[in-house]
Amino acid sequence: MENLSFVLRAPKEVAIEDRPKPELKDPYDVLVHVGQTGICGSDVHYWQRGRIGDYIVKGPMVLGHESSGVVIATGSKVTKLTSGDRIAMEPGVPCRRCAYCRDGSYHLCGSMIFAATPPWDGTLAKYYINASDFCYKIPENMTLEEGAMVEPVAVACATTKTAALRAHQSVLVLGCGPIGVLCQAVAKDCGARLVVGVDVVEKRLEMARGYGVDGVFVPPKREGGVDAMEHAEAVSKMLAQQFLDADEDGFDVVLECSGAEPCVQLGIYAARRGGTFVQARMGKENVAFPITAVCTRGLTVKGSIRYLPGCYPAAINLIASGRLDVKRLVTNRYRFEEAEEAFELVKAGREDVFKVMISGVDFGPC
Amino acid sequence: MENLSFVLRAPKEVAIEDRPKPELKDPYDVLVHVGQTGICGSDVHYWQRGRIGDYIVKGPMVLGHESSGVVIATGSKVTKLTSGDRIAMEPGVPCRRCAYCRDGSYHLCGSMIFAATPPWDGTLAKYYINASDFCYKIPENMTLEEGAMVEPVAVACATTKTAALRAHQSVLVLGCGPIGVLCQAVAKDCGARLVVGVDVVEKRLEMARGYGVDGVFVPPKREGGVDAMEHAEAVSKMLAQQFLDADEDGFDVVLECSGAEPCVQLGIYAARRGGTFVQARMGKENVAFPITAVCTRGLTVKGSIRYLPGCYPAAINLIASGRLDVKRLVTNRYRFEEAEEAFELVKAGREDVFKVMISGVDFGPC
Amino acid sequence: MENLSFVLRAPKEVAIEDRPKPELKDPYDVLVHVGQTGICGSDVHYWQRGRIGDYIVKGPMVLGHESSGVVIATGSKVTKLTSGDRIAMEPGVPCRRCAYCRDGSYHLCGSMIFAATPPWDGTLAKYYINASDFCYKIPENMTLEEGAMVEPVAVACATTKTAALRAHQSVLVLGCGPIGVLCQAVAKDCGARLVVGVDVVEKRLEMARGYGVDGVFVPPKREGGVDAMEHAEAVSKMLAQQFLDADEDGFDVVLECSGAEPCVQLGIYAARRGGTFVQARMGKENVAFPITAVCTRGLTVKGSIRYLPGCYPAAINLIASGRLDVKRLVTNRYRFEEAEEAFELVKAGREDVFKVMISGVDFGPC
Amino acid sequence: MENLSFVLRAPKEVAIEDRPKPELKDPYDVLVHVGQTGICGSDVHYWQRGRIGDYIVKGPMVLGHESSGVVIATGSKVTKLTSGDRIAMEPGVPCRRCAYCRDGSYHLCGSMIFAATPPWDGTLAKYYINASDFCYKIPENMTLEEGAMVEPVAVACATTKTAALRAHQSVLVLGCGPIGVLCQAVAKDCGARLVVGVDVVEKRLEMARGYGVDGVFVPPKREGGVDAMEHAEAVSKMLAQQFLDADEDGFDVVLECSGAEPCVQLGIYAARRGGTFVQARMGKENVAFPITAVCTRGLTVKGSIRYLPGCYPAAINLIASGRLDVKRLVTNRYRFEEAEEAFELVKAGREDVFKVMISGVDFGPC
Repeated sequence: MENLSFVLRAPKEVAIEDRPKPELKDPYDVLVHVGQTGICGSDVHYWQRGRIGDYIVKGPMVLGHESSGVVIATGSKVTKLTSGDRIAMEPGVPCRRCAYCRDGSYHLCGSMIFAATPPWDGTLAKYYINASDFCYKIPENMTLEEGAMVEPVAVACATTKTAALRAHQSVLVLGCGPIGVLCQAVAKDCGARLVVGVDVVEKRLEMARGYGVDGVFVPPKREGGVDAMEHAEAVSKMLAQQFLDADEDGFDVVLECSGAEPCVQLGIYAARRGGTFVQARMGKENVAFPITAVCTRGLTVKGSIRYLPGCYPAAINLIASGRLDVKRLVTNRYRFEEAEEAFELVKAGREDVFKVMISGVDFGPC
Repeated sequence: MENLSFVLRAPKEVAIEDRPKPELKDPYDVLVHVGQTGICGSDVHYWQRGRIGDYIVKGPMVLGHESSGVVIATGSKVTKLTSGDRIAMEPGVPCRRCAYCRDGSYHLCGSMIFAATPPWDGTLAKYYINASDFCYKIPENMTLEEGAMVEPVAVACATTKTAALRAHQSVLVLGCGPIGVLCQAVAKDCGARLVVGVDVVEKRLEMARGYGVDGVFVPPKREGGVDAMEHAEAVSKMLAQQFLDADEDGFDVVLECSGAEPCVQLGIYAARRGGTFVQARMGKENVAFPITAVCTRGLTVKGSIRYLPGCYPAAINLIASGRLDVKRLVTNRYRFEEAEEAFELVKAGREDVFKVMISGVDFGPC
Repeated sequence: MENLSFVLRAPKEVAIEDRPKPELKDPYDVLVHVGQTGICGSDVHYWQRGRIGDYIVKGPMVLGHESSGVVIATGSKVTKLTSGDRIAMEPGVPCRRCAYCRDGSYHLCGSMIFAATPPWDGTLAKYYINASDFCYKIPENMTLEEGAMVEPVAVACATTKTAALRAHQSVLVLGCGPIGVLCQAVAKDCGARLVVGVDVVEKRLEMARGYGVDGVFVPPKREGGVDAMEHAEAVSKMLAQQFLDADEDGFDVVLECSGAEPCVQLGIYAARRGGTFVQARMGKENVAFPITAVCTRGLTVKGSIRYLPGCYPAAINLIASGRLDVKRLVTNRYRFEEAEEAFELVKAGREDVFKVMISGVDFGPC
Repeated sequence: MENLSFVLRAPKEVAIEDRPKPELKDPYDVLVHVGQTGICGSDVHYWQRGRIGDYIVKGPMVLGHESSGVVIATGSKVTKLTSGDRIAMEPGVPCRRCAYCRDGSYHLCGSMIFAATPPWDGTLAKYYINASDFCYKIPENMTLEEGAMVEPVAVACATTKTAALRAHQSVLVLGCGPIGVLCQAVAKDCGARLVVGVDVVEKRLEMARGYGVDGVFVPPKREGGVDAMEHAEAVSKMLAQQFLDADEDGFDVVLECSGAEPCVQLGIYAARRGGTFVQARMGKENVAFPITAVCTRGLTVKGSIRYLPGCYPAAINLIASGRLDVKRLVTNRYRFEEAEEAFELVKAGREDVFKVMISGVDFGPC
């Protein structure tokens, strides 16, 4: 048994295989014994459909990319890590040489090697090799499970950074799944004056409340015959009436973490004139979109993808300092051998399931 | 004959009326003898439909808002203008007291008084009263016609400023009507490395070429059965192939000046990862919109409306310094008495008509 | 007894005078019965020296500008305030018409009317007239004393905003007087990862600790014969060693709140490459300054003066929401009749005196 | 004769040595036959004093870092360059892995390998090895001499970018040496409304005029007994009176390209409230500095060092497109064998010497 790996062989077909233990080649790389891995929607998407946009699974691919682990070997030029270091892994390594990488936008690098994005293997294996500067030491008071949770927290940090969220702003977060509630928590930590979470699932609103939002909101259903945009505008007015002052015409910042078309529309109308809307989650590819409202209201609409420079360290600091409790988001834990079962649970989409964690080979559940 | 005015009495019904000469009340206001007025699409829109969005013409309203003139009286606290000064008029005066006005976003003021936007009368009259700090002296080498052209140039300045357009960037401008070509010219003046204009009308491409674009492009028609987004993406690749280097995946900045749905879609796909798209013109209210592309490409989509602080002075400087020749855009000139005829010409939408100018009462055509 | 006022008649000569009750003229103004007023260093400076820079006291001037109060009359166009409203007063009213005011920089307006800045009377009187949009309603759970404390909190908000301070940054604050500790507290509220306060006075460090800084530091004295810049650089290295990681070369943000030359020098050396230094307090007019270090380290050095748009509402929200306890900063309270005694106390510069508060006429101490 | 090199053996002692031809090791590197090299002040500084700040020449070091050349061999992973390509070389290669490199600030990388900065050899040799992504292909219409001039143009681009210089701004440039006039030219290309150059040497003002500045200014000498700051403020008022409108209180942007203490002081006073001052050249290490003026005027003071991402491509585009004529700056040309003579000329500091160029081994002068 060299390197047990959870492999997607074909759409809907996964298996645990034993693969050769990888060897260090690049002198800046480290070999990691994977500790804990969270399951992400994109993992399930590849499993079920074999593709996301232009990324198509054409051969067997190891799944997983939200992982922590322990360094067990280091390349000759690695100076800041040593064997035994417990780390969180940023799963995308850019080329470092293109205009994006050099300009501080490595998340947009067109040659990025990203775990569990075809054709690159993911982290659901005993071993994984990663660039040393994309492995971040975690302090002793953080568990490996918390180390794996750094990934979604980093996504939330990237989202608020993309929104240029500042202290004293009002923030609306659409969707109270893991990314939504983490965005809410990170927004509060940034000094947001008001954070409101929107969802239709009570379990999720409950989770949001536990993370300290100032209010939650359940949007009413659209009645048959009501125009989608009119509905969105009407709901945005309910939100304003419930949460904002009379002289405020909307939220400073809207973070769209659901991917649902009505939420995109609601979010545009819920932003104040000159406000910022960030699309932080992929859902429906194309939506009916009030472009004239964007124009007349002078809005800024941005897309957030992956992690910006500095997000991993920031996320680790949030968790390690105790300002953000990620443990409560981990609702289900599985051993490596039960990986398929864990994936089935995520696929089922139960309301009480937030983040599902899979232990690394030879690691017990936290 | 006190104050001849071109009045919209009801949708599709205009007339020249004689109204009382207005009197100065606010000590910071000035009384202006209107010199030249350009016709804008929104004037025609009110004339034909009686409304734009939530702004509904409920009583008689003077049309026109792109005007220059001569100061003939000044309020007691006006220090920087004096009778006889030739000026360009910024047609929207904000409240100066709301959070938007105080924060440098007066263009988003909810209490703005805007000429020819219900219920406020416009400038197509012999006299108009305006706040003195929204009247900008023009130098002797500028004509009153050029003074009226400051308005669309200021719109172009606001668009490039909203886009945060910087030197050395590549810029795609969709639409080569008056605003489109002015955006192209202003972008070149900002040091843009590459400016490409897109339109399907040869007369407009010709005008664009005259303003110094580095290239023009006629997008191919979408074949029956081809998906709109696939078409947009395919056309964006043609654009890249024709105008960009092999390692560039799109334009740094896209300015959408057509309001047409296919142009919005093309513009999103034509922006590089991390690029900026600005919607600068109102057209179809809602469009099918590739929100996932915005997300995965990390785009910034912004709306531009009216003029930002500093745009009027910048526009005057562009014209007065000779860096921007606006005269060639004025294709048709009418006397005040012929105002309706001028409006009919704009309505007709002829390919060779760019900007139509109406002389003020007692002013001849330039 | 119409309007008792604390008047600076000449340098070092103050007296309580009875002046006529002011009358509302501008329809947007309100008449305020002053509630509580904090004493600021600049008040004492005018009292002792009769000038600050180009501002020279040439006639009798009422002192005071950090005030709260109760609205007792409103101009005809005031819609958002009514008699009886308890308010915090922003003491500078700009012209609203210059390029600065229109561009979101009203704090730089050259025609600003600022309380207790010659020739403008201040707020240490029974009555004060202020522009209604510069009077901010405070909620019931805030006292008038807290209302007066909004001013220094707004200064701290302006300082962190000028620094563009963001979550996850490391911040060094030089000086632990009232502005210093408030900057520290506001920085923590903005999500700063690390805030270190520097001072040589133990009482002040104690206050800083109470406001939740992550560390305090007492800089060693410069030995005779040691170059000032070498000393500054050496001390900056001690700071880094004590508070930063090995791969960090300085603080992301340095806020200079002491006005002392050695602190300016230390602050420049203590900033990381590409970091930001903000001068937030006036002290020595000219200093020996390591301009080459600014150049080679790619630093940004900014000056912060007064309050930026939005700082007063932000400061009120910080206090009203309970995130910032300002009461502990108020170490001494005086009745209006004791105003001179209060000024004497501030002048004495005792280590245990932070903020001194003077009750309004007919108001008791809090 | 393998690799003739111009070596600094000890302070004031240079010699042409023959060194072994370097061999490619890193697969991303290229071997360059150096074409033309401009002499920079820092080269002369190392030659005469053996150090700049903390950088001390401890062993023999090849001088030169402003070079173009021809690629003659490429590493195995180089895809965008091929033998025979004519290139401009960016002389600093960062580590690509530190927080600065990853965040878009590679110019601040603490591990940068910079040509002719101890202990790294420079480019005044027949051969030089450089990272391929720091070698930029130049088009056919550019000479190798223009390729070498890309370096100072890139410095000017970095300076204006650091200043966030935008179209329609007024710009004061202190110093009309090569960097000064290039900053002036780049500022004009960015659409600056007004560019004024300051110097006391007529030959330099003449060069500035040739580059299209809107005005030049010779500051009057400070009379004995006049305070330096008072002099600076007085001169700033002369500048304003001569070049600005009555309601403007200073320049939007000041670029300090002289390194002289009086120019730093003048520059601070010449900036408008809220304006930006960039220190772009090293001179006196510490200066008497009006820190209170920075504070009360809300200034931004920044240091500019080396080149920001994107500056080399921008500079090449400026030259290749014909918008910037760099040839007129090259006043003196030498063959490789005459390198010491060329250095002597620069050292002499003659008023008519701007940029001195040395041909590569086996290349004739342009």
